[in-house]
Amino acid sequence: MPEKHFNLISTCESARAGELTTPHGVVPTPVFLPVGSQATVKTLTPEEIKDLGFGMVLANNYHLYLRPGLDVIEKMGGLHKFMGWNGALLTDSGGYQIFSLAPLCRISDDGVTFRSHIDGSEHFMTPELAVQYQEVLGADVIMVLDECPAYGDSPEKVRRATARTHQWAKRCQQAQKRPDQALYAIVQGGISPELRHQSAEYLTALDFTGYAIGGLSIGEPKEATLAMIEETVVFLPESKPRYLMGVGSPEDIVEGVARGIDVFDCALPTRVARNGALFTSHGRRNIRNAAFSKMDKPVDPDCDCYTCRNFSAAYLSHLFRSGELLGLRLATIHNLRFMSNLIQKIRSAIVDGTFSTFRKDFSAGYQPADEQTRYDQKQKWLRARMTRD
Amino acid sequence: MPEKHFNLISTCESARAGELTTPHGVVPTPVFLPVGSQATVKTLTPEEIKDLGFGMVLANNYHLYLRPGLDVIEKMGGLHKFMGWNGALLTDSGGYQIFSLAPLCRISDDGVTFRSHIDGSEHFMTPELAVQYQEVLGADVIMVLDECPAYGDSPEKVRRATARTHQWAKRCQQAQKRPDQALYAIVQGGISPELRHQSAEYLTALDFTGYAIGGLSIGEPKEATLAMIEETVVFLPESKPRYLMGVGSPEDIVEGVARGIDVFDCALPTRVARNGALFTSHGRRNIRNAAFSKMDKPVDPDCDCYTCRNFSAAYLSHLFRSGELLGLRLATIHNLRFMSNLIQKIRSAIVDGTFSTFRKDFSAGYQPADEQTRYDQKQKWLRARMTRD
Repeated sequence: MPEKHFNLISTCESARAGELTTPHGVVPTPVFLPVGSQATVKTLTPEEIKDLGFGMVLANNYHLYLRPGLDVIEKMGGLHKFMGWNGALLTDSGGYQIFSLAPLCRISDDGVTFRSHIDGSEHFMTPELAVQYQEVLGADVIMVLDECPAYGDSPEKVRRATARTHQWAKRCQQAQKRPDQALYAIVQGGISPELRHQSAEYLTALDFTGYAIGGLSIGEPKEATLAMIEETVVFLPESKPRYLMGVGSPEDIVEGVARGIDVFDCALPTRVARNGALFTSHGRRNIRNAAFSKMDKPVDPDCDCYTCRNFSAAYLSHLFRSGELLGLRLATIHNLRFMSNLIQKIRSAIVDGTFSTFRKDFSAGYQPADEQTRYDQKQKWLRARMTRD
Repeated sequence: MPEKHFNLISTCESARAGELTTPHGVVPTPVFLPVGSQATVKTLTPEEIKDLGFGMVLANNYHLYLRPGLDVIEKMGGLHKFMGWNGALLTDSGGYQIFSLAPLCRISDDGVTFRSHIDGSEHFMTPELAVQYQEVLGADVIMVLDECPAYGDSPEKVRRATARTHQWAKRCQQAQKRPDQALYAIVQGGISPELRHQSAEYLTALDFTGYAIGGLSIGEPKEATLAMIEETVVFLPESKPRYLMGVGSPEDIVEGVARGIDVFDCALPTRVARNGALFTSHGRRNIRNAAFSKMDKPVDPDCDCYTCRNFSAAYLSHLFRSGELLGLRLATIHNLRFMSNLIQKIRSAIVDGTFSTFRKDFSAGYQPADEQTRYDQKQKWLRARMTRD
């Protein structure tokens, strides 16, 4: 890995502005990574993602290992070439997906046996294989294999999962062969402040290139999420990037940055877009609402995205009501542009030393989905994931 | 309508090269119109359609009248503005859709009563209303309301439908108020050469700006389609454009041009793309075939489309196998680029006087879907249309 993967440029209270240097470009932080688990950010081309202001994308070792298979991606010259993306890439090891998507998984200290959610075939993943596979994929940042306890698991189970995550992190570090990839460790510990402290300290001592916070936003109350971020961050080194996995919504990102997070990824902006939920300067709005069906202005007149510059809310509403695929695309473009604009405003505010004002104004003006809606959607989504291919 | 809507530039045996002059640009003929029934060419933006080489698109009065409703499109400033397309537009009157999509339609000399395939609501369409509605939409070329008999209807039924189509054409002509729109008549007559002659002669006497051939490619054998084109074209004026509605595949277009057709529209290239069937210089290929899953070359190395310039067949195969929406888009781009390239080659060959050689080479090299596949797909599609929204 290059000597200096992460460069901290300025801070504003706990919020940080910096940059990640990777073999595929320098990525300013805070950064939000659009999710392209299956080697595609749903509905969009690589050019569109770049034009939306993103320099780094997330893909998933679990999904790609199962389909199309690593042999195919290796033959195509690696994941960047396969998906036509010449920006930076981060691959998740697939730990979370094995525990949340794959049926019948059995874990031992060695590794985890699981069945494919696609065809039911049996597979075995170890920390060493997770690294080896991600070296074949060739992303700029790769993740250790971790064990993700579910929200509600017993303290004992969470403790064991955290200890195993630590042993696996060490094995991943030892297995790493490619020096051009940054390997990030993943802090676990459920909603126990003590386990989070221990986990952060243990992994920090191993001196990874970056640190992720895993196992959050999986059903726990939002206050617990935020508390665990705070409990973890204080034990992480200032000089390394901090990545909050699977988070978040616009409001979660503002709050995550306020607590010292540098990197985020989340399928939410693109997933809710395909359900017609659009981020606007006043909060989340659903394009299927009757009010939009005859509105000749764009969904968000303040937005500079392709969708808002070219189409009325009435047209987007028509596309959704007609089940037209272009609607999914235009909504995805809109939400991702909202995210990249948000991240840019956040970063400017940090650099200018005005982040706390920005944060206050944002939470006063932006109306998030309420807690119950968030919870219902998450549950619905988790159920859907269990059955779909 | 401008004095000279159609300009015949050169001929090569029966094949013709010309141009359509419209308020939204000059469109070289032969021309293939991508289908955007619901004010969107499925999966694509207006810019992409233009970049693919298309200057004219088809939309549908039946679909848009039902959803979002003409009041919405009128409020948005017409169909061009609504869908963000500043090229030429042709709207079909919706006659064919009423007879093929809408359940429980009852016809009288006055007009046709039908139920919406979306919500079952009852509606009444007359020739006058079809024109009035299309004047609200504001396309550059509009179509008369016709009665489309089904393939297999009794000769008597076809005769009556043809006679009614003539009366309705006259009423459409009388109802037209906007002088900037070209109104095309539609020749009917089933697979009866005599009725086709009569229909062409009757409508030619009314002096329309253009002539369409309707009621073909609806289940009859391909030889009958081609024979009916020939029987009709000889009775149409040379100075007016000839539009073969709902046709076709690459091979059908070459054969249609050879028989003197200038304008084509068909959902087939975009529809089969979404099923993974791709046009290549050697014929139709399905991206789901195992051979593609590890191919590091593009689907058609001879193709200059965005998809083939940027992605391997293996990647496209992966997107289809994973149910990824980007796959539908990339396949649509590929097939439409194939169509626009084909049309351009056809036109050059006509202008150069080499069209008959082109036609021979094309049919020797391009392997179309076989008759049974075509028939099965058409039936499957017709059944699907009856149930989907």
